Amino acid sequence: MSVTIAPGMTSRAPLDPSKLVIKRTEVLNAVPEEPVLGQTMTDHMLICEHDPVKGWGAPEIRPYGPLTLLPTANILQYGGNAFEGLKAYVGPDGRPRLFRVEKHMERFARGARRASLPDIEPTAVIELLKRLIAVEARWVPDKPGYGLYIRPTIISTRPYLGLGPSEHAILYIILTPAAPFLGAGRPIALYAEDQHVRAWPGGTGEYKMGINYAGIIGPQAEVQLRGYDQTLWLFGPDRCITEAGIMNFFVVLRREDGDFDLLTPPLDGTILPGITRRSLLELADAHTTGLTTLSGLPAHRKIHTHEVVVTMPQLRTWAEQGTLQEVFCVGTAVIVVPVGRIWFEGEDVNVLRRVQGDAHESTDAPACVSSALRDRLVAIQEGRVDWAGWSVGVDEL
Amino acid sequence: MSVTIAPGMTSRAPLDPSKLVIKRTEVLNAVPEEPVLGQTMTDHMLICEHDPVKGWGAPEIRPYGPLTLLPTANILQYGGNAFEGLKAYVGPDGRPRLFRVEKHMERFARGARRASLPDIEPTAVIELLKRLIAVEARWVPDKPGYGLYIRPTIISTRPYLGLGPSEHAILYIILTPAAPFLGAGRPIALYAEDQHVRAWPGGTGEYKMGINYAGIIGPQAEVQLRGYDQTLWLFGPDRCITEAGIMNFFVVLRREDGDFDLLTPPLDGTILPGITRRSLLELADAHTTGLTTLSGLPAHRKIHTHEVVVTMPQLRTWAEQGTLQEVFCVGTAVIVVPVGRIWFEGEDVNVLRRVQGDAHESTDAPACVSSALRDRLVAIQEGRVDWAGWSVGVDEL
Repeated sequence: MSVTIAPGMTSRAPLDPSKLVIKRTEVLNAVPEEPVLGQTMTDHMLICEHDPVKGWGAPEIRPYGPLTLLPTANILQYGGNAFEGLKAYVGPDGRPRLFRVEKHMERFARGARRASLPDIEPTAVIELLKRLIAVEARWVPDKPGYGLYIRPTIISTRPYLGLGPSEHAILYIILTPAAPFLGAGRPIALYAEDQHVRAWPGGTGEYKMGINYAGIIGPQAEVQLRGYDQTLWLFGPDRCITEAGIMNFFVVLRREDGDFDLLTPPLDGTILPGITRRSLLELADAHTTGLTTLSGLPAHRKIHTHEVVVTMPQLRTWAEQGTLQEVFCVGTAVIVVPVGRIWFEGEDVNVLRRVQGDAHESTDAPACVSSALRDRLVAIQEGRVDWAGWSVGVDEL
Repeated sequence: MSVTIAPGMTSRAPLDPSKLVIKRTEVLNAVPEEPVLGQTMTDHMLICEHDPVKGWGAPEIRPYGPLTLLPTANILQYGGNAFEGLKAYVGPDGRPRLFRVEKHMERFARGARRASLPDIEPTAVIELLKRLIAVEARWVPDKPGYGLYIRPTIISTRPYLGLGPSEHAILYIILTPAAPFLGAGRPIALYAEDQHVRAWPGGTGEYKMGINYAGIIGPQAEVQLRGYDQTLWLFGPDRCITEAGIMNFFVVLRREDGDFDLLTPPLDGTILPGITRRSLLELADAHTTGLTTLSGLPAHRKIHTHEVVVTMPQLRTWAEQGTLQEVFCVGTAVIVVPVGRIWFEGEDVNVLRRVQGDAHESTDAPACVSSALRDRLVAIQEGRVDWAGWSVGVDEL
């Protein structure tokens, strides 16, 4: 296949929210009591096209509906895209709020750059998102634990079979109401996988690009047929833990001094730099430095955070020794989900412990560090607790 | 994001060429004298949709035009697809012929399976392709070196944001006439890359899936801005050579006994199992065993083929010692393209040698093993030489 030598990626007209056109649907859908995340879509979407000559066109809010793409479009042939996932919540004042939207949009812009797509200015996308949520306000669920999942996406529509950076692109934002994660609180079962590799140094695992996802569908389906919820992705001969399914991974260890160690793999290029991951580390640090006290944890019990390599054999040893306090996975959709067992080398490793009582006492009750972190995070997301400007009313953005 | 537990991938109605519907365009495009590969598309395309309940629908040959996809479609979000690239040529008898179409379609089916897409029966796709080429016969260029590039594609249209195997899919075949590769015969310059990694054992590098491509666009564009044609992808601390751009990589060494060693990296999961790669290895073996004699090479000079790891430091040593005869890249689009120099560790390694004369004599003339292999391959592809059923008239399939 011929490869086109591309000029430097210069965008023409920048993404300009002031050009927004709103075309409302004539028939509004009923908002279902129990929406299905990723299947129930709201009435409208935001869309904006980038043209190689003119740059970004006028953004448009229009009825949710299909896109029209040439069969040669890069996204259909080579998977050129970047996307994001974030949530809006209704606060106690009844207004929709967004959680750490700047961080999400900075990551979105990084993904687009890595995918050789036109520049997207995070502040412009935020402004457009704000306008979209205003149109779709009735879709932001006003129930505890519910939210509106937001999926900004940019795809390469470059209509040539040759590979090259793309000045043809469509940016779109779609919305889907999210019920609390199915089985929230129920510990999940992971299957530690060393046959397939999700990401590698020098690859794209640290970007939210579609190309990181299609390859894990098959391996995940196999694991689920064996009765496990998600794959635990290992890397290298030491079997370092990287991610679980499409979530970041955390371990809590109980220290001899009664404090906790909170461990998560470092951002070495194979790990998605999760916003939930980052937020939980920051909340744990805030508890430890006394900036706040997490409910359910004694103020004098510190949580020492470590972004360090954790290998599966090491984790098994901690479980056997009773040092292991809990294991959990985090992400925007699930927030925090505890892990009960991990299949590794032919058998399940039980990783469910509780802080009270002696080692090896298993229970279904959520363990304390993850639930303390989770409860605080959700309170911030839902606007019940103010924290560091993380959750901002859409009308204040 | 929630992950749906999927049932085993069972197709409902199989892909059935007898259901083919042909809708011809009313306005035929003029066939350009100098078509642009991947940009000039023919008048018609073949399309067939797979539905989770009904299975494969009726295949349709229809005017070339856009596809309509929901914004949630897996291909737009997660890049779920597989594709192929093969060529049709007009033989001396004026009939279009296909080169090793079974091998291509078996690889296509493997890719679809790895992407958790519905089963595609290679023989059914071949039958449909045959019908499409019959409709588009006037687009198969009847000039030496020209061909019709065929791009079968299967995309996941699963319309949910959750990840899962897909029973929603579109299979399509598009055609683009191919002029001889731009600058054919001119040695290209490679840039050996150790910062970005194209593929990894346990990844998807051995499948023709779009997710292997979007990530290399940026690194390739950087290399091209530095004045090189393609990236030479290295792997691991030993800096093993894997692929060049999106082509397989070959090395010819001159042996002390006057024979040649032909080396190419083994299929370890990081290498696309190229049909051109395989064909050249088989032709070299046929020359060596005396089944045929390649023009331009003395019959008594054997070509010893080796699927072995080649490291970049080793290649540089061979170049310095004068053992290195030639370096070339192969693929369906380019067929065979010689390499002139490779940037590595801060300087260009000159890899252009010729067999005549002593070592270190550089020349622009194509060296003998690659051109002997190329000439024979093209003769087979164009139907001027019969060989092992590799090139078959479309009406004989």
